Amino acid sequence: MLRELKEEVYRANVALIESGLVKLTWGNASGISRKERLVVIKPSGVDYSDLSPDNMVVVDLKGRVVEGELRPSSDTPTHVLLYKCFGEIGGVVHTHSTWATSWAQAGKSIPCFGTTHADHFYNEVPCTRLLNTEETETDYELNTGRVIEETFSERDYLGTPGVLVAGHAPFTWGKNVLDAVKNGIILEEIAKMACLSLLINAETSILPKHIMDKHYFRKHGKDAYYGQNPKNK
Amino acid sequence: MLRELKEEVYRANVALIESGLVKLTWGNASGISRKERLVVIKPSGVDYSDLSPDNMVVVDLKGRVVEGELRPSSDTPTHVLLYKCFGEIGGVVHTHSTWATSWAQAGKSIPCFGTTHADHFYNEVPCTRLLNTEETETDYELNTGRVIEETFSERDYLGTPGVLVAGHAPFTWGKNVLDAVKNGIILEEIAKMACLSLLINAETSILPKHIMDKHYFRKHGKDAYYGQNPKNK
Amino acid sequence: MLRELKEEVYRANVALIESGLVKLTWGNASGISRKERLVVIKPSGVDYSDLSPDNMVVVDLKGRVVEGELRPSSDTPTHVLLYKCFGEIGGVVHTHSTWATSWAQAGKSIPCFGTTHADHFYNEVPCTRLLNTEETETDYELNTGRVIEETFSERDYLGTPGVLVAGHAPFTWGKNVLDAVKNGIILEEIAKMACLSLLINAETSILPKHIMDKHYFRKHGKDAYYGQNPKNK
Amino acid sequence: MLRELKEEVYRANVALIESGLVKLTWGNASGISRKERLVVIKPSGVDYSDLSPDNMVVVDLKGRVVEGELRPSSDTPTHVLLYKCFGEIGGVVHTHSTWATSWAQAGKSIPCFGTTHADHFYNEVPCTRLLNTEETETDYELNTGRVIEETFSERDYLGTPGVLVAGHAPFTWGKNVLDAVKNGIILEEIAKMACLSLLINAETSILPKHIMDKHYFRKHGKDAYYGQNPKNK
Repeated sequence: MLRELKEEVYRANVALIESGLVKLTWGNASGISRKERLVVIKPSGVDYSDLSPDNMVVVDLKGRVVEGELRPSSDTPTHVLLYKCFGEIGGVVHTHSTWATSWAQAGKSIPCFGTTHADHFYNEVPCTRLLNTEETETDYELNTGRVIEETFSERDYLGTPGVLVAGHAPFTWGKNVLDAVKNGIILEEIAKMACLSLLINAETSILPKHIMDKHYFRKHGKDAYYGQNPKNK
Repeated sequence: MLRELKEEVYRANVALIESGLVKLTWGNASGISRKERLVVIKPSGVDYSDLSPDNMVVVDLKGRVVEGELRPSSDTPTHVLLYKCFGEIGGVVHTHSTWATSWAQAGKSIPCFGTTHADHFYNEVPCTRLLNTEETETDYELNTGRVIEETFSERDYLGTPGVLVAGHAPFTWGKNVLDAVKNGIILEEIAKMACLSLLINAETSILPKHIMDKHYFRKHGKDAYYGQNPKNK
Repeated sequence: MLRELKEEVYRANVALIESGLVKLTWGNASGISRKERLVVIKPSGVDYSDLSPDNMVVVDLKGRVVEGELRPSSDTPTHVLLYKCFGEIGGVVHTHSTWATSWAQAGKSIPCFGTTHADHFYNEVPCTRLLNTEETETDYELNTGRVIEETFSERDYLGTPGVLVAGHAPFTWGKNVLDAVKNGIILEEIAKMACLSLLINAETSILPKHIMDKHYFRKHGKDAYYGQNPKNK
Repeated sequence: MLRELKEEVYRANVALIESGLVKLTWGNASGISRKERLVVIKPSGVDYSDLSPDNMVVVDLKGRVVEGELRPSSDTPTHVLLYKCFGEIGGVVHTHSTWATSWAQAGKSIPCFGTTHADHFYNEVPCTRLLNTEETETDYELNTGRVIEETFSERDYLGTPGVLVAGHAPFTWGKNVLDAVKNGIILEEIAKMACLSLLINAETSILPKHIMDKHYFRKHGKDAYYGQNPKNK
């Protein structure tokens, strides 16, 4: 069942370790088959060295296990909700990567200070509000998804493929799970550079909109001309 | 004698080097056999490349060498005291890991700024007071243990399995020595992220109690549901 | 065509990854044959693992592709302009290396705080002004080259072989492409040390001119005496 | 001639690269044969991959080459002067290691904030004054040695085996060249932790003298009890 997707989700979870984004078991990646309406996700709290394509867990869009002998990541309800709200994404990644998590702990959105950021995330990477007591005590992981949905109520989730959950850590997404991993890598680097920019100059300004637009549309949309893709011709 | 425990303590000491927590000979790990009332600990000041299960030192609960040709770590009296005060621990680790040691030097407890912290250490990781002249000049290592005991007089050592000794460095513990190593790795990462959070936002707030509780009890206690353990079902 | 130069430019692009200066596809290196008036440059947005000497792109001094099946780096107009303005350089490198990019985002020139800097870059490494709306919307990459040219209108591009483009990232150059890579590595390290110096002492002073001169001329010019070169005898 | 010392100095220079203390050619190590009154030092500006025991350079205590086809490190006059002033040392190391150099650029001595520091350097690691114009223009490297000598006029060079040259970088020494390398590694780590301690707490206090003494004399002098050395019994 979903052999190819399991292989891809497995490789994404391994890539999270190899890239240094995930320490111990602090992270998880999932991918969705939109056609089958099924999500493949990492099992909960399993050492990365024990992972294999075969022990990835398959859940439906209610988060119920459809296949797999292990329990799915405890963050499964967050992943599933994101697939439901963000209809065009194919993969979701959650990490506690050092610099992005530090911004989440600080409760601050990451301002767009440069073109590295603008090339991949349009405008700031937003930080959610904290969950309240009720949201925390009942359906915590589902409510984590809801506060992300709320944060993007007036934002474009394709233009800004990531978020910081306040007091917690980042989630990123993409057209598939490996793209979501790549966005996690980029988010970590721009989180680091934004912090260093502020250390160098506490008054660092946001990139002017004309440069932000230029860089974003150089890589995205119909007039893109970066890379080798046909649409960018 | 205690072949298995020696092997485990040896592997823990090697893991301290491989994880980057220990440079040169700045660290030591020990494990206890509660049944035999004997502690296995790293020899003092020996290069990690010269360690083997066979040169681990066995001491009793008075810190006297029972087996081994090398002298035990100079921090042995601290380890032994912790085993006596903290009756349910099976392993102790001491390192001078960069970020945790910097908090210890700064004389500050590490506030719980996020869920990575809350998942593993309930509330702040406390920093002890400095030892006074008398405590330093006589039985220094024993008094280091005593000031840790004093710091935990109204804390739960199982909920917060680590401490910063002011002006010195961290100690962590766990149900066994490899668990204590893991807690040392986690402590180093949360020490780093807490510092970075303050650099991003000097007014970073402590995680609200309802989220702190949620994350801690998601992983610990009878209602835990993280991971694959039977008790977490 | 230009077999040797292609090999060299290929190796330079690989060195950018191996040195940690370039993550993902965020960087490019080029070299020029002054005799043939042709530039060899990395193709745009190609994974480093897919690069080879054979898929390097050859362009003329109008930036038109002369050989190669892939599109050249989107930054080609910047490289070409630099070769035209800076008549004695043989290689150009662009990266988004972490610390240098953080200075560029902060909009600050890197002051010469020590001899490591003075050994390789005479005086500060300047930061350009931001491009305005018109310069950004039309011929952006060419105008990026022009703002670098403007920044060096009263500076010696051989004495200071690098620049920070405000809100963007560094460019470095050298007598050949591997020399430009080396200058990129040096720039990253002095960017890091300058930031740390300011964290240690917010009032850090610029190196006095007599020491700046001593170190620069110890390595450069007719009285140089560092290294094994005949001219340094 | 001095085969064993050449081998040792070669290995020390390689260790500087492997430990990450030296990038490119920014560093050098030397050792002395007190009996022969000859110093073995790295050649100037040679790539580390081209070093071998055979191309180490032998100089006398006037800095004149006695054996070797390459020119000795441009810092040779500094090394030689240190051997003359500090009669009990056997090795000298100079690096531009990131954190120690940042303190040197900041013009600040590294305060003793913790026991990691106190275990190896008694009290602060001092920063010299800047050289004046005359000292810089004539006999610069010799005067670098003199300003170190001046800085230690009322300090114990055995108790504090290293120094920061203002605006430049660190020098360390030891009973032999590998010991000097080890002191360079330790200096880099305590420089990093001192900076981080200040970021965490700008009011970080110096370690009380009774703890400083305890740690230093636990490892040094007639009452030392750390490690396995006979004198520490």
